Amino acid sequence: MDISDVLTRLRDFTDERDWAQFHTPRNLVLALVGEVGELAELVQWRTDDEVRALARTAEGREALSDELADVFTYLVSVADAVGIDLDEAVHAKITKNAAKYPPELSRGSNAKYTELGTRDAQPS
Amino acid sequence: MDISDVLTRLRDFTDERDWAQFHTPRNLVLALVGEVGELAELVQWRTDDEVRALARTAEGREALSDELADVFTYLVSVADAVGIDLDEAVHAKITKNAAKYPPELSRGSNAKYTELGTRDAQPS
Amino acid sequence: MDISDVLTRLRDFTDERDWAQFHTPRNLVLALVGEVGELAELVQWRTDDEVRALARTAEGREALSDELADVFTYLVSVADAVGIDLDEAVHAKITKNAAKYPPELSRGSNAKYTELGTRDAQPS
Amino acid sequence: MDISDVLTRLRDFTDERDWAQFHTPRNLVLALVGEVGELAELVQWRTDDEVRALARTAEGREALSDELADVFTYLVSVADAVGIDLDEAVHAKITKNAAKYPPELSRGSNAKYTELGTRDAQPS
Repeated sequence: MDISDVLTRLRDFTDERDWAQFHTPRNLVLALVGEVGELAELVQWRTDDEVRALARTAEGREALSDELADVFTYLVSVADAVGIDLDEAVHAKITKNAAKYPPELSRGSNAKYTELGTRDAQPS
Repeated sequence: MDISDVLTRLRDFTDERDWAQFHTPRNLVLALVGEVGELAELVQWRTDDEVRALARTAEGREALSDELADVFTYLVSVADAVGIDLDEAVHAKITKNAAKYPPELSRGSNAKYTELGTRDAQPS
Repeated sequence: MDISDVLTRLRDFTDERDWAQFHTPRNLVLALVGEVGELAELVQWRTDDEVRALARTAEGREALSDELADVFTYLVSVADAVGIDLDEAVHAKITKNAAKYPPELSRGSNAKYTELGTRDAQPS
Repeated sequence: MDISDVLTRLRDFTDERDWAQFHTPRNLVLALVGEVGELAELVQWRTDDEVRALARTAEGREALSDELADVFTYLVSVADAVGIDLDEAVHAKITKNAAKYPPELSRGSNAKYTELGTRDAQPS
């Protein structure tokens, strides 16, 4: 998938419904929060194994797919509303994270980068 | 950008640090929530115009890009952890939404699809 | 603790800093989201037992207390911004939930109230 | 309202349904996220004035009250699950914030405390 294809579909969808008026940066961040909440509801009372099992049922798979897709589309829309190229942002951030978390220091550790390599590193 | 390229980079990144042990579905959903919280912090005390202005400064643009990218990478990782093809999920959901929100009924309205076309539609 | 005492302290705090101008309903909801994100960050890479252990260390206890308090104060502020008595709302909602989830039907089940007592109840 | 009264009602509610098994710290944080998402949905497409107007209708007031109450009850439950006295945490945090944000430096400013009194303070 090319994100720009998704963006084109989303913009057409929005234009056909005259919804651009609602798609301000803050409205879209709040809508993103709503969708993340729905994703959280699908996993809140389940163990990790139960979540994985849910993803193997037809109904559960559709529910999870729908919520992941909703988060994705609002995320793409937030980026679009502030004029940021999400593709570029993602690749730049992975490169930045690789520098923040050197493999030799962070291997098997859940410590935050500010605490890597310190003796009393607190997981965070 | 192809999502599968991002996923390949993320998997390599995770493997090099032996972090797969932390990347369970629920851990990743919680990490996604943390990143959405950081995105919300960037817009919480600003108007929409101030958010757009922020995105035009070098520092603000980088801050917004970083948070959007973090949300994206955890979202891709959640989908991967439950074995869902995010690309497929997104296109299927846009098609589903197009059926739920017929242009002629939803034009210019922020009503939820369950209330479209009713006289007393409550925005939601 | 009386919520009205907290509210009085928060209003004084806000007035002394001339911050009421920022405390609109949507700004406060976004600030609440930011704080919930910080709470999520404290538990994202930990098991439940590790979270409980964290709460028994001085530093971890303070971190958790601070985030819980931040969520609480923004929640009280949102309620204040829309003129809702949180005390009254909470007691009314517990009473409502008691009717939605009759003990005999919901005992030991994580099913949503709309699915209680049906043979194929899906946890949700 | 005394938080300990709410906590007593919540514990009784939970015990009568044998739900304590689900009330682990992380499950409750995820449930809190779900409720914050529902609150966000009520304000996502509305201006601040429209949110205030919503709170003056019977139906909207009930919807907002219910979501605020749900966030509150899960927050109280998270605190209980990690053995933290929310009342104490809240008062300690307000005192701490008062020191971080001296009125004379922070008046009318949305700058983060780390940037107070610096010439180039960035709102955050």
